[in-house]
Amino acid sequence: MLSAKDIKRIKSLGQKKFRDLEGAFVVEGEKLVREAEQSGFRILERYSVADIGEAAMERISQLSSPSPVLAVVEKPTAWDKVCADVPAPGLYLALDGIRDPGNLGTILRTADWFGISGVFASADTVEISNPKVVQATMGAIFRVKFALTDIPALCRATAASGGVVYGTFMDGANIYKEELCTGADRPVLIVIGNEANGISAETAAAVTRGISIPAAPTSAMESLNAAIAAAITIAEFRRQCAQPSTKQHG
Amino acid sequence: MLSAKDIKRIKSLGQKKFRDLEGAFVVEGEKLVREAEQSGFRILERYSVADIGEAAMERISQLSSPSPVLAVVEKPTAWDKVCADVPAPGLYLALDGIRDPGNLGTILRTADWFGISGVFASADTVEISNPKVVQATMGAIFRVKFALTDIPALCRATAASGGVVYGTFMDGANIYKEELCTGADRPVLIVIGNEANGISAETAAAVTRGISIPAAPTSAMESLNAAIAAAITIAEFRRQCAQPSTKQHG
Repeated sequence: MLSAKDIKRIKSLGQKKFRDLEGAFVVEGEKLVREAEQSGFRILERYSVADIGEAAMERISQLSSPSPVLAVVEKPTAWDKVCADVPAPGLYLALDGIRDPGNLGTILRTADWFGISGVFASADTVEISNPKVVQATMGAIFRVKFALTDIPALCRATAASGGVVYGTFMDGANIYKEELCTGADRPVLIVIGNEANGISAETAAAVTRGISIPAAPTSAMESLNAAIAAAITIAEFRRQCAQPSTKQHG
Repeated sequence: MLSAKDIKRIKSLGQKKFRDLEGAFVVEGEKLVREAEQSGFRILERYSVADIGEAAMERISQLSSPSPVLAVVEKPTAWDKVCADVPAPGLYLALDGIRDPGNLGTILRTADWFGISGVFASADTVEISNPKVVQATMGAIFRVKFALTDIPALCRATAASGGVVYGTFMDGANIYKEELCTGADRPVLIVIGNEANGISAETAAAVTRGISIPAAPTSAMESLNAAIAAAITIAEFRRQCAQPSTKQHG
């Protein structure tokens, strides 16, 4: 049986201040809890409907339709360690103010799919252990390297060390006409801006190469969704990396 | 002033059965309402905080943070007209059971960006006039051609008429090694499956070409998000279409 105090405590992990206080976050669903258990993450508590009953599960769950299992997982200290050291050669994402939890979760899922070396995020990015982020990652949260970072400082340091800092802009160079640096021999960052305002002015000043996904001439859209823009950009980096040789069309 | 009856009626448009009954849906936000007004859609009612006050706006809004304006817009009859006629030459999406409103909205936004000729959806796809779909489209809902469709029948008819039906599968051909048919001279469908179960068996049987987005060898992810997979696939069709000539890398 769960005490009323336990229920209140677990439910409170839906809020950032209690996650910070407890150094823990919540994972729900059989598949996701299994991935948490198989990862290097430390499981602090584990509850199943079979043990605590449906009523208690509904009270501790963050989901509108509670799943059969819920785990309280220790939050890695690396997630909150703010740094701006130049990373090793590889292809990285730098998130400059992503605010929607679904977008961050989807970006992490995409980063895992494409084997991105790491994801850096500014302090005003939605918090990674937010339950909606965790669920949207579909398990990628346990595998993708993530760190809070001073994004403009990271971009400046990376560029100064001979790395390349790409930023997605409305008026950047067409990604399909660029020969993209794929990170094999130096660190390469792809900066993704905020959903409404794009890349901040300070970060934009540190971008070494502005890039853009071409829209159809008929389109009246101002922009793509941030997670979509990130995915199409990463996919093009990976395509160019995987296919260095010439391909004939038509 | 809005009567209690009006408030109840407008708020009820959050539910499909009342949207069907009234033949109307709700659009919120200054930008989105302006786009509705500039489109060919018929605006039935328009409310602003300046006219009705914040309290009434909160009661009729579907948003957690209500915006200054809300419009009730007539639902086009074309959205509900079920057909499976072979479309004209062009590149189309066929959605086979997309259930998440954010995914459908994002897919429509992406379709608008890339100038997709039309989007077909199965009856078990989330309803297009769902408020979360409308908001996620960022206005694309007023521009992208959309129709409910018997997807397997559409695929069979398109293939029989000389068109091409692509379907995204885990084990399909690498999209970057395929010479993709871009729809210039015949109808081309890209089928996108359900978030959890992929493309249904009946639809899969009518797919003429299975395709796949290659994952990193290190990735443990089972799949990409459906809207992300759709976007990367469409982007690659457009890239090959725009760049028929050979490009040198490296």
